[in-house]
Amino acid sequence: MIVRQVPVIIGIDLGGTSLRVGAFDLRGEMLNVQDCPIEASQGPDAGIARTIDLVEKVLRSVERYDLKGIGVGATGPVDSVSGTINNPYTLPTWQNVSFTTPLTKHFGVPVVLENDADVAALGEYWKGAGQGVTRLFAVTVGTGIGTAFIMDGKIYRGLGGAHGDGGHHVIDPAGPPCYCGATGCWESLASGNAIAKYARQEARLKPTLLLEMSGGDPQRIDSRMVAEAARKADPLALEIIDRSAYYLALGMVNVIHLFVPEMIVLCGGVMHNYDLFIDRVQKEILKHNIMVPVGQVRVLPAKLGYYAGVTGAAYTIYQMIMGK
Amino acid sequence: MIVRQVPVIIGIDLGGTSLRVGAFDLRGEMLNVQDCPIEASQGPDAGIARTIDLVEKVLRSVERYDLKGIGVGATGPVDSVSGTINNPYTLPTWQNVSFTTPLTKHFGVPVVLENDADVAALGEYWKGAGQGVTRLFAVTVGTGIGTAFIMDGKIYRGLGGAHGDGGHHVIDPAGPPCYCGATGCWESLASGNAIAKYARQEARLKPTLLLEMSGGDPQRIDSRMVAEAARKADPLALEIIDRSAYYLALGMVNVIHLFVPEMIVLCGGVMHNYDLFIDRVQKEILKHNIMVPVGQVRVLPAKLGYYAGVTGAAYTIYQMIMGK
Repeated sequence: MIVRQVPVIIGIDLGGTSLRVGAFDLRGEMLNVQDCPIEASQGPDAGIARTIDLVEKVLRSVERYDLKGIGVGATGPVDSVSGTINNPYTLPTWQNVSFTTPLTKHFGVPVVLENDADVAALGEYWKGAGQGVTRLFAVTVGTGIGTAFIMDGKIYRGLGGAHGDGGHHVIDPAGPPCYCGATGCWESLASGNAIAKYARQEARLKPTLLLEMSGGDPQRIDSRMVAEAARKADPLALEIIDRSAYYLALGMVNVIHLFVPEMIVLCGGVMHNYDLFIDRVQKEILKHNIMVPVGQVRVLPAKLGYYAGVTGAAYTIYQMIMGK
Repeated sequence: MIVRQVPVIIGIDLGGTSLRVGAFDLRGEMLNVQDCPIEASQGPDAGIARTIDLVEKVLRSVERYDLKGIGVGATGPVDSVSGTINNPYTLPTWQNVSFTTPLTKHFGVPVVLENDADVAALGEYWKGAGQGVTRLFAVTVGTGIGTAFIMDGKIYRGLGGAHGDGGHHVIDPAGPPCYCGATGCWESLASGNAIAKYARQEARLKPTLLLEMSGGDPQRIDSRMVAEAARKADPLALEIIDRSAYYLALGMVNVIHLFVPEMIVLCGGVMHNYDLFIDRVQKEILKHNIMVPVGQVRVLPAKLGYYAGVTGAAYTIYQMIMGK
């Protein structure tokens, strides 16, 4: 009797706080997914060991698997060519960490490493909101803002394979300074961090529900708290959402004028509250419907939520295996 | 005796004020070039007749030509698919003008129509500063600001074939309102018109050489006059150049963060004074050399000057004939 093996690919989503691993078949069905904290500050060696353990755990859950390859999406900057992660900002101590080599050595399969924003966008292209969209622009609004452009199902790359970083394009020079060198870049005005920072500052001046929710300590306010207060119609929270929706829209107007994509998909933690932002965003965008067909660009929330990363990571290795 | 015929392609550059026609051989050598005013307000029929006349005149100067096709770059918006020009803004009365059909009918060859910014960029790619550059971004700073992205020698197009319009991406919401629907778009802050407008306003307040040059009437100041005064070290003119170089750089920073191109080529009338701007532009750009390899992006002035349009227009039809 021949026992059929299931060809399996693994997608890894390596973030600043947690690690998620999914096993997929070649049609993109997720067979199993698990996560654990990454505890990056324990160093890259511990992180790699942790990753290998979790991959093995996920694989054990799949009967008779035949592992074909592993795709990794990691919080950037990453170097896809050499397979190294260089991100001491969100992964403390992770400086020039060769990530693909130990995985290839351990599992004996090809391993691909990409930027997490690119990978989330690819996930939405393969199995999410942007399936089959020729020019798909993804904006990931989380702690920061990441961007990715998927063209004909491929990650758009710049010079030397560089990943674009639209989150740091300038939209208002009167805005706050950012570690990127700019003042008033998109991330500094519309990210989760930007929302939190602005809310902390304003809550001090206008003590409303938001201050109450933070137990009187404005420093404890985060962007999720702002969304929650906005749902309870707190005027300050609504004002803050309105402000960041305006800046979110401004950056999208710029993306649309430069790329004219068929679709913008909004990913990331802050966009789990997509419904709070979208009316204001759409209203602002449509003011610019003159030079390019702005009104024809579809704006949608991500469909895969927390699984966009593992799905897209699996898709990168799928593309490689299939020679796409 | 067999008389060899020379395969010839025609490039047409149709601007708001003048019409230029060049004849090229298939290696891109310009055999003849001529121009005349377009006098658009006399209507599209007169304009088309004028164009046909000039093409014939240019062709007569080439011995034993064998016309293979015609490429047209026109001041946008144009519809490349239907071959129509729809630009009542810079070509008064030219609303939905079918431009390629009458030319095809008259000359019996294929005719291609593209946006003038795209075509100038293609010219620089074929025969100018950007030869062989994989990802070439062109910024045309003239009366307005036009942008084009040439990827692997092809014009990048957005949804439905739409031409991107980076000149109207927002860089400072505190800037002046623009007909595009934005306040503070790139064009409103760094174009020739923006320079002239700001200079007129400032010359009233700070009467220096600039006011003198305009014969005491600030309304007569244009961007060329500002450049001239700057060369004579007029402090106000230098300040104006500095301001627009800053905004020019800001838009370029954004382009770099989103596209990470190998090269930005600066075209258009205002960039004939490239040397007045470039130091300030480079200094500003390099402040942002953190998230993407900004310092590796080459910034160069266009090489073909007034002939970028006809050269690129010829290249569009060359690409079509050669099936590229």
